[in-house]
This record gives sequence, structure tokens and C-alpha cells, in this order.
Amino acid sequence: MKKDYIVQPIAIVRNDQHSQTDTAWGKIESKIILNDELPITCLDGIEKFSHLEVLFVFDKASKTVIGSEHPRENPKWPKVGIFAQRKKDRPNHIGATIVNLIKKEGRVLTVKNLDAIDGTPIIDIKPIMIEYLPKGKISQPKWSKELMREYW
Amino acid sequence: MKKDYIVQPIAIVRNDQHSQTDTAWGKIESKIILNDELPITCLDGIEKFSHLEVLFVFDKASKTVIGSEHPRENPKWPKVGIFAQRKKDRPNHIGATIVNLIKKEGRVLTVKNLDAIDGTPIIDIKPIMIEYLPKGKISQPKWSKELMREYW
Repeated sequence: MKKDYIVQPIAIVRNDQHSQTDTAWGKIESKIILNDELPITCLDGIEKFSHLEVLFVFDKASKTVIGSEHPRENPKWPKVGIFAQRKKDRPNHIGATIVNLIKKEGRVLTVKNLDAIDGTPIIDIKPIMIEYLPKGKISQPKWSKELMREYW
Repeated sequence: MKKDYIVQPIAIVRNDQHSQTDTAWGKIESKIILNDELPITCLDGIEKFSHLEVLFVFDKASKTVIGSEHPRENPKWPKVGIFAQRKKDRPNHIGATIVNLIKKEGRVLTVKNLDAIDGTPIIDIKPIMIEYLPKGKISQPKWSKELMREYW
């Protein structure tokens, strides 16, 4: 009954961040380089959007957490399930982050606020439309705000 | 050089929408049912978040657009590349939508604003943290606002 789906990279991340970190991602500028086999027209008009959502593979993630645990193994924070966290060790090793598009030059997008290391395979890029942002008031638990404090 | 990655469903969508539509998704309430092989603890603490991002497979998408075209084949709108659109016929058939979490009951999440039809396989659920929302002013082209006008 359980079906496999195959996904393939459409681009790659290039930046100066060569290992996983939990701080200061906001300082890193990244280049997203479209794969050669895709036509450059894939990116037509993307420069009219200020923000993009980037879906990528946590290709260095080597395990999968399926239960409940303390985020970042910090016992001060409650145990929560993997789908109440955004960490990489999830059933499908896919990350999703909204980035600022700085510029487009040919097959290269320069972006900020992408929390993916150098060499990360990208599987999708979607434009951010205000109509797709959260509807209504957003609430989140205190631990998640503490965890994110120095992330960007 | 091009690598395949395998993703597997972690949950399924149940709702009353049995075919693709471009309007009134906001009226539909959906249930997200966690797959049996995953422990219920996967969802621990998720109810503390008001919004979730749901990644799903457009499993009814039968083609892939890789060039540039008019959104919804509407010649009034400019031709744009597939990565400047959110439509289903993309290189990897993956959708990503931010939903409102209404309630959690056991293995079932009731949500609103999920634009996925009945039976859609879900491959990830991520909590929405304000810190992951777009940073700075958002801009988007006029065509995308027109396209989204009656979507929700």
C-alpha cells in the first residue's frame, strides 16, 4: 500500500557554509544554480517576486526520528513529535525555507535566508504569494521561539 | 550525476473535494490521517501550533512543464517559468501549503486552507514558526494577485 515517489534535484546550493549550524544563517548569501538539463526559461519572471520558497533535500541527514524528543536534545524544552519540529532527521529528509531573492543572473539566483549548506540539492522553487501566507493569527509554543532566537 | 531521492507518504488527505479546482479551497475542511506505521508520538505537541505547512504529492499530475507559459493558459497574463508558478505540473510533483490547524484527535489532524484533493499523499508536516515567515517587504507581480483572487 505504501508507495514510493522519486524526486530529482533541479538545482544546487552554493555558499560558504560547509557544515550544519543552528545560528546566524541570515548572514549567509547563497547561490541557487539551476541544473543544466533544465531550460533557462524555467526561471522566466521569477525576478518579479521578492521571496521564494525553496524545497531541498537534507542529503547529509543520516537518521530518521519518528518518535517524540526534546528539540536539540535540550531537556528544558518539552518532548515533541518530529512533525512538531522542523529538524532534518524526519521521515522524508526534505527542508522548506522562504528566502529573499536578491538577484537573478542567467541560471543563477542569489538569495538570503536560506538555511541549507553548500552542495545541498534543491528539488523545487515556488514563488511566495501573499495569498499563500498563514491566514489568521499565528501562535506557537514558547520553546520554538527560544530555539529560533539566534537562528537567523 | 543526477541523483534520485525516494519519498514516502506519511499521511493521507481526506475531504469532500474529489477533483482539481482553482476556486473556493478555503471552504473545505480536510482531515490529515497519519499512516499506521508511524507512532502517534510523531504528532506530540503539534496542537500548540496554530498553523502547519503540509508538503504533499500532486499524485494526479500527469505531465511536467519545464518551459515558460501563460498561467492557467490565460493569454492576458505573461508567460512565466514553472518556478515562477505554484501549479502542479512541475519537475517534482510536490505541493506545499500552509494550513490552519483546527484540532488534533489521535492520529487525525483537522485543518482548513489545504488545497489538496481527497486521497492526496502527504510527505511532510512542519510547524509554522513566525521566524520562518518571509523577512522584509513582500512583492509579487500583478498576474499572481489576479490568479489568486478566488482561490480561497
